[in-house]
Amino acid sequence: MNTIDKLSIDTIRILSAEAIQKANSGHPGMPIGAAPIAYAIWKNMNHNPKDPSWRGRDRFILSAGHASMLEYSLLHLYGYDVSMDDIKQFRQLGSKTPGHPEFGHTCGVEATTGPLGQGFAMAVGMAIAESHLAAKFNRAGFNVVDNYTYVLTGDGCMEEGVSGEAASLAGTLKLNKLIAVYDRNRITIEGSTDLAFSENVAARFGAYGWQVITVDDGNDLDSIENALHLAKRQDKPTLIIVDTKIAYGSPKEGMNSAHGSPLGEENIRLMKQKLGFDYDEPFTVPAQVYANFSRLAEKCAEPQSAHAQLMKAYKTAFPALYKEWEEYHAPVDVESLINDREFAEFDEKVATRAASGKILNLLARHIPNMFGGSADLAPSNVTEIKGEGYYSPDSPKNRNIHFGIREFAMAAICNGIMLYGGLHAYCATFLVFADYLKPALRLSALMKLPVIYVLTHDSIGVGEDGPTHQPIEQLASLRATPNTRVFRPADGKETSAAYMSALNADCPTVLALSRQGLPTLEATSFEAMRGGYVIKAADGAPDVILIASGSEVELALKAAPVLEEKGIRTQVVSMPCTELFDAQSDEYKESVLPKAVRARVSIEAASSFGWQKYTGLDGANVSLDTFGASAPAGKLFELFGFTVQNVVDTAIRTVDSLK
Amino acid sequence: MNTIDKLSIDTIRILSAEAIQKANSGHPGMPIGAAPIAYAIWKNMNHNPKDPSWRGRDRFILSAGHASMLEYSLLHLYGYDVSMDDIKQFRQLGSKTPGHPEFGHTCGVEATTGPLGQGFAMAVGMAIAESHLAAKFNRAGFNVVDNYTYVLTGDGCMEEGVSGEAASLAGTLKLNKLIAVYDRNRITIEGSTDLAFSENVAARFGAYGWQVITVDDGNDLDSIENALHLAKRQDKPTLIIVDTKIAYGSPKEGMNSAHGSPLGEENIRLMKQKLGFDYDEPFTVPAQVYANFSRLAEKCAEPQSAHAQLMKAYKTAFPALYKEWEEYHAPVDVESLINDREFAEFDEKVATRAASGKILNLLARHIPNMFGGSADLAPSNVTEIKGEGYYSPDSPKNRNIHFGIREFAMAAICNGIMLYGGLHAYCATFLVFADYLKPALRLSALMKLPVIYVLTHDSIGVGEDGPTHQPIEQLASLRATPNTRVFRPADGKETSAAYMSALNADCPTVLALSRQGLPTLEATSFEAMRGGYVIKAADGAPDVILIASGSEVELALKAAPVLEEKGIRTQVVSMPCTELFDAQSDEYKESVLPKAVRARVSIEAASSFGWQKYTGLDGANVSLDTFGASAPAGKLFELFGFTVQNVVDTAIRTVDSLK
Repeated sequence: MNTIDKLSIDTIRILSAEAIQKANSGHPGMPIGAAPIAYAIWKNMNHNPKDPSWRGRDRFILSAGHASMLEYSLLHLYGYDVSMDDIKQFRQLGSKTPGHPEFGHTCGVEATTGPLGQGFAMAVGMAIAESHLAAKFNRAGFNVVDNYTYVLTGDGCMEEGVSGEAASLAGTLKLNKLIAVYDRNRITIEGSTDLAFSENVAARFGAYGWQVITVDDGNDLDSIENALHLAKRQDKPTLIIVDTKIAYGSPKEGMNSAHGSPLGEENIRLMKQKLGFDYDEPFTVPAQVYANFSRLAEKCAEPQSAHAQLMKAYKTAFPALYKEWEEYHAPVDVESLINDREFAEFDEKVATRAASGKILNLLARHIPNMFGGSADLAPSNVTEIKGEGYYSPDSPKNRNIHFGIREFAMAAICNGIMLYGGLHAYCATFLVFADYLKPALRLSALMKLPVIYVLTHDSIGVGEDGPTHQPIEQLASLRATPNTRVFRPADGKETSAAYMSALNADCPTVLALSRQGLPTLEATSFEAMRGGYVIKAADGAPDVILIASGSEVELALKAAPVLEEKGIRTQVVSMPCTELFDAQSDEYKESVLPKAVRARVSIEAASSFGWQKYTGLDGANVSLDTFGASAPAGKLFELFGFTVQNVVDTAIRTVDSLK
Repeated sequence: MNTIDKLSIDTIRILSAEAIQKANSGHPGMPIGAAPIAYAIWKNMNHNPKDPSWRGRDRFILSAGHASMLEYSLLHLYGYDVSMDDIKQFRQLGSKTPGHPEFGHTCGVEATTGPLGQGFAMAVGMAIAESHLAAKFNRAGFNVVDNYTYVLTGDGCMEEGVSGEAASLAGTLKLNKLIAVYDRNRITIEGSTDLAFSENVAARFGAYGWQVITVDDGNDLDSIENALHLAKRQDKPTLIIVDTKIAYGSPKEGMNSAHGSPLGEENIRLMKQKLGFDYDEPFTVPAQVYANFSRLAEKCAEPQSAHAQLMKAYKTAFPALYKEWEEYHAPVDVESLINDREFAEFDEKVATRAASGKILNLLARHIPNMFGGSADLAPSNVTEIKGEGYYSPDSPKNRNIHFGIREFAMAAICNGIMLYGGLHAYCATFLVFADYLKPALRLSALMKLPVIYVLTHDSIGVGEDGPTHQPIEQLASLRATPNTRVFRPADGKETSAAYMSALNADCPTVLALSRQGLPTLEATSFEAMRGGYVIKAADGAPDVILIASGSEVELALKAAPVLEEKGIRTQVVSMPCTELFDAQSDEYKESVLPKAVRARVSIEAASSFGWQKYTGLDGANVSLDTFGASAPAGKLFELFGFTVQNVVDTAIRTVDSLK
């Protein structure tokens, strides 16, 4: 390693350790041990600190998000909008340098990471997006989409199942522009990886169909760079395994205590001494190091001007394609879609999953950059875009994706696709298996990505498959998640409303859809985009309000005339999306749920958990707070009280109890 | 294959297809294709249909739970308590033959399966339990614990990340009595596995450290049986890959349409013809087949009498060990633990995670069969049983487990350990990563297994690690799950109460524990086992009730005197476990939360979702309904309003709004 490379790498090590020391909190071990790896990657990446959102840039994801200071050090040194003051504010309130990298918060950070394994899977998503867009837009001599995706992982990411799921798919898909670098320091919090992780990772990735390159010495910059070059010469993804020492050069080298706690000032002093870093003052960046990074930043930004030239020529040569390219990156014109009558027309009776299938196919015609699929349940989820074929190494232009039976990786991959830009990602499975993908959905929410989750078979309507396949608590779990919209539409029209609400949102949207056929209701409309609305008003001030969602709206509408016959004035509210309803004005909410009316009954074939927000201490909930059972759906709805009779009885009891 | 074997296997195929046909629902493809595999396994297993809970039996898990009819057919034919009428009632309300196998519901079913990959991981747990108990109890000439665990998986189980996590750990742990058989029919719902799953599974499992045996022809019974014998001659786990044809012998052979829909009557007729099965009448079991299974049942039950003899001799030879053996299988004497003062004594200030560590270590002394660990966070979760060492191939007797960074597999493995019997399993990670393990926790709940989930770092008290590590919606998500107790104790004493409540429960218990120190409160006690209780009564009828959990109970107690000074009579309720509170008598609940008092304020540093059940339409929630942030914990509590001042202000506003 030459002198300036070494000094630059040591600066990253020490800057990271010092910031963590000042914060008295953080993970110094990996930034110190993996500094040469990150240095090598960034040196070889195309990116431009002056234009961090340049579309042609290579992507870098720090999957081992706890090593955040490694990324912040690089961002600072390369001249991104992360100042030395920001570095000194590591992990402090409101700083640009939070504990784990946060997309949308710190310029240059491509993905929010920390929950292990997901950064890896998001990188797979980015590589899928790149290859799909390249197939769509590139023409001979015009590789307008042409970048690599780099992901830096640690032992933790490798142990998590989600990275295995994603790696297996990446191998099948031959994502040759995906380069994963594994900082193998063989130390986790509880000690050596031998304790729980003795597998041969290289052989495992070979089995997935990856090229695997091993670098024995984590300080051998040339070998790392050489491996990065070799990675680009294959028709498959590459894993570069680099053996490193956690907290290299410090007295805590090789120790698990270096993973998640500051080294201590004395240890930093000793590390500086050992590395030959002659600057006592904390947060010192030698001038020649700044100069080196400045030179590197200029060099790595060079491809951008060439790319700008290329895009200009492309615009002339392929004006129609260029227009499409612009459209791919523009928001959807939702207004015009809402005015399109197709989205409001459904058969007399249709399962909302089937309505969703119709809408998705209509949308695919209007929005050419819809891209997604199911975790092997496409026929059940009704998510196939017809006539489009499936994305594969031989046909990367196709818009349907076979994710395989990998719900978690699927959702993380969709996050990666959205992060890449230019595409609208959706994914699908059964609602009950939202549990399998939830950690990735949480990151969609945190990153404000409008991934659409098509989750069908939304209740005991699942029927015979029984309690393992019947969601009970999933709606509550998803509704409780910040910045997430959960839509449980009553019919096709409300399903359209859900999609319209989802498209330009700054949050993910869950569509909870029925397996069974539901009647197309007269009173439903795009008003559903308000989250909750009156679909049957009472004649005068209501005596009772029935609040229902999804398949149970029909029940409420059927119960209403029975109650009215008994002289109970009944208002029926369809509440497909509580989050959107909560965001309405107080006046609007009062019109839907007048405060004075305390007799309120919620009806939803799922846990009552959370409905008391609307029904209060005096209301009642027609709900299912135990697990379901295996039987034909009709029998189950009856067994568990989802009948007109039970709704009527419950409403009467509620009204009576308030007299 | 000899005639009777073939006829027996074909009977399984046809019985399964016919039951699915009658139900007009189910998954015929795998039962038909994998019938020889299951036949071979059961033929070679030690088990006794007349005593299905015999402790020395080999375990069988159908990880591909959708092939339930395969298991029901075998249970019926072997003479378990599954009659032909039960078979005819497949997937009907209340039958013994639900859509997916359910533990505790159908005699002979060892685990509830269906959510893919988890059966495999539970089998790993069973094999861990077996080796641990064997190390503890076996003596030369007395292998009182000595059984194999068989798990039958399909392509889906192999694609799910959780099986990879569990397989990697099983390899590290050299679980040589674990035999996985992979029915590789290469067909999933969306089509050929080539579409999304082209990896080399054999090489992958080799990389994990497994023996891998491949059988090319799924109808080659001898080769399958031979592989089962070879599996027993290794010091590592074995994967037997058997290439089969989905729906073998039927016109839908090799087609994905055979996976999840009945074959159709005509196809069953044609299948019978092709297989040479000469019985037109549905649900026919030829007499010679019943005779064959009867003979097999007797043979496979033979080891039980030998084992009974062995146990008798063991009792004489090792009376103390035998007594321990009995104790391992008896409920815990919780009453006597509660009366043990050690469990009520804590320092003035202690994080509940640290209190939990103390309690766990005390319990480990009283309960020798506590067995568990963390997903690589033991130092943070404070879950190590001190002086016990770690379970490993060299020291299987040790009681701490290194699960590795594999939350999902960890929880599924704990389910397997509990299912095996004789052990109390616990596992640990951060509360926010409950999301990663939730699908297995759901199965704990469904199977009524009292797994203890030690989930620390339970709020923004996490501090600097930031929003990816700060739980918000997790408490709501877990509370909404049926048959699950979520405890968020206010101090050490309530943490003890949580453990006491958990030990003999017929449900899993989540302990949500603080990272930060909390004062040991004067008013807390084992009353916490009622879920919610008054820890500060008002002087007379209360004007306001403050309901808090965990770290926020202190806040409520501090706010009370401030409110009282202003003439507002304040009752403070500690509510560590809403599920237990809900189960109390109406009188008790009225004493804690009098209906007449509408001014109620919940205080919990997490989503308000669900708290309105107790605070109603007139109450208020001091809560956090957005994601957190990265900063020192103290700053975050202040920023998000978890201050005495805000609690006081909120209470006053609530009281005033009702005037």
